[in-house]
Amino acid sequence: MKIGGTAYRTIWLCPDGRTVGIIDQTRLPHHFETIALTRLEDAACAIRDMQVRGAPLIGATAAYGVALAMAHNASDYALEEAIALLGSQRPTAVNLRWALEEMRRALHGVHPAQREAAAYARAAEVCEEDVEACRRIGANGLALFKDIAARKGGRPVNVLTHCNAGWLACVDWGTATSPIYHAHDAGIPVHVWVDETRPRNQGASLTAYELKAHGVPHTLVVDNAGGHLMQRGDVDLCLVGADRVTSDGDVANKIGTYLKALAAADNHVPFYVALPSSTLDWSLDSGRDIPIEERSATEVLEISGQLGDGGIASVSIAAPGTAAANPAFDVTPARLVTALITERGVCPASRAGLRTLYPRELAEARSA
Amino acid sequence: MKIGGTAYRTIWLCPDGRTVGIIDQTRLPHHFETIALTRLEDAACAIRDMQVRGAPLIGATAAYGVALAMAHNASDYALEEAIALLGSQRPTAVNLRWALEEMRRALHGVHPAQREAAAYARAAEVCEEDVEACRRIGANGLALFKDIAARKGGRPVNVLTHCNAGWLACVDWGTATSPIYHAHDAGIPVHVWVDETRPRNQGASLTAYELKAHGVPHTLVVDNAGGHLMQRGDVDLCLVGADRVTSDGDVANKIGTYLKALAAADNHVPFYVALPSSTLDWSLDSGRDIPIEERSATEVLEISGQLGDGGIASVSIAAPGTAAANPAFDVTPARLVTALITERGVCPASRAGLRTLYPRELAEARSA
Repeated sequence: MKIGGTAYRTIWLCPDGRTVGIIDQTRLPHHFETIALTRLEDAACAIRDMQVRGAPLIGATAAYGVALAMAHNASDYALEEAIALLGSQRPTAVNLRWALEEMRRALHGVHPAQREAAAYARAAEVCEEDVEACRRIGANGLALFKDIAARKGGRPVNVLTHCNAGWLACVDWGTATSPIYHAHDAGIPVHVWVDETRPRNQGASLTAYELKAHGVPHTLVVDNAGGHLMQRGDVDLCLVGADRVTSDGDVANKIGTYLKALAAADNHVPFYVALPSSTLDWSLDSGRDIPIEERSATEVLEISGQLGDGGIASVSIAAPGTAAANPAFDVTPARLVTALITERGVCPASRAGLRTLYPRELAEARSA
Repeated sequence: MKIGGTAYRTIWLCPDGRTVGIIDQTRLPHHFETIALTRLEDAACAIRDMQVRGAPLIGATAAYGVALAMAHNASDYALEEAIALLGSQRPTAVNLRWALEEMRRALHGVHPAQREAAAYARAAEVCEEDVEACRRIGANGLALFKDIAARKGGRPVNVLTHCNAGWLACVDWGTATSPIYHAHDAGIPVHVWVDETRPRNQGASLTAYELKAHGVPHTLVVDNAGGHLMQRGDVDLCLVGADRVTSDGDVANKIGTYLKALAAADNHVPFYVALPSSTLDWSLDSGRDIPIEERSATEVLEISGQLGDGGIASVSIAAPGTAAANPAFDVTPARLVTALITERGVCPASRAGLRTLYPRELAEARSA
């Protein structure tokens, strides 16, 4: 997507065909800086220090990290060492392990002399596959925007989104933001209500940033405001991403998503969830079985931002010693979800709905 | 209530019988400091600079401000000048105008030589009336806690509250917090989930502070977390204050209250609203007619807190130029409210329910 009129991805191969470029996301939204990764260790640091974040982008960075390693030393030993180093940077990231497994598969049995080229080729494919999945999510979601726009007679389509399921978390387009960008680029007037998304404020720091950079009209609101916005008729649809979706259509996503889904249902606002197929967990039926990560209390008690002098600082918002709890996700029951949008199409959030797009996967999950 | 084992009110007459003490609430939660008000201008500054905040406390401070003025000059002119100065500090505060009107009525026709004493006496009454109303709200709400505690067999009663409807907003006890303090003081084990309450963070900075100071167990959470807490069974009741309640029982309160009421209904958690009778607006039937204040975008874009070096600072959480909207209140429809708790008793949030406690007021409102 665009930043300052220039098309960017979150990760790219530089003209030398070897160096990998990324955006330093730890500096957003206050500073836009790119970083050149030239060695395996650079890629590992970028993942560990969250210069890249978001499951698809972490996977893509790890894939290129293996390629950087192979450019230096393409031995079997170096390959396994690179996979081990990269895999240990974010132990819980599923996409990270998936991408490294892809790289191992692609390079297994390849002669060391060909490994560098094969690694760069597979890393580029990993990126392209993500871009294509996100692009299709956008194309599929675009139809929903067209329907609403047709009813609004030129007035903007108001979307509410939560957290950052944006292109900054992927390679391009994003998941929840992809239909928004597709609609905007197709000339449909769109306005986005951006939940700030406490405690980590990904809405304020990333979603608002990327919408602004691409030129999509938007307004930042606190997470508390969405219900009121829906009551007064200022939201035409909600559109969020997902961290995991069960075979019955229950949706685990960033904490607070459930509250917006309740408000949407109470105000007859459609509530859509955009996700790549890799987010579907066929091993679980009910959202009640999804484990919810409890994160550090510090994320609640301290907020990071920019001081008046331009420096970045954290401030404590409660008295020292205040106890805080920080569940990172909640589960929105399928009954509150109008439809799921995946790269394969749009379907009801239910087993029957998912069967229309994923008949084989559901059948295999049953027999497992 | 207690701070560090010592019983405090938010405003008090000092032993000299003339100076008025307050807690400097702009320094909370990071510093506890008291201020001595000796002149009319001190009281006006305290209101303007939000060293005192919360409708009842603003009213009480204004009443004592008139008394401080009368101690200096008890002429009719000085009285009207004091009322005008104090009334202009927070133009929209209903309680401020009410308290000043009370003072004018109490001093009208009183000989200047007796005015100082009459003013201090009426100011003290204004405070006592608020304390008594809050105390009764607590006594009435205590029964609800006893019922739940009886079912929980010694395990803590988990309450979720939003914003600060605490004693720091009143003179003592608070409204929503009063049943909590009464239950705690009665030996019922209580644990409070404190919503941080973006954008102004009154939960993090005031509610958590006052619960801690009085020794009530509590945990701070982001506003997004409450739905998940209710889904997993960790909330026995919600208890919030109100800014305005209509004759049909619709409740205007701090933005985000509606989302918690939706989650409570979805999870069969009782949702109570505590309020003094002065919060009832008999002139309105539907909550749709309550005007919702839109406050400064700066409250969304900047967060104040304590730096590592102990200094207080504001940090920006979004890129410069980000648009933000800041509706300050929302309306919870009566259908989502289990009951209202006032100083007169507990009643359903409906016209019929309110008639059981306020037959005269409702009849008069109808005939108006």
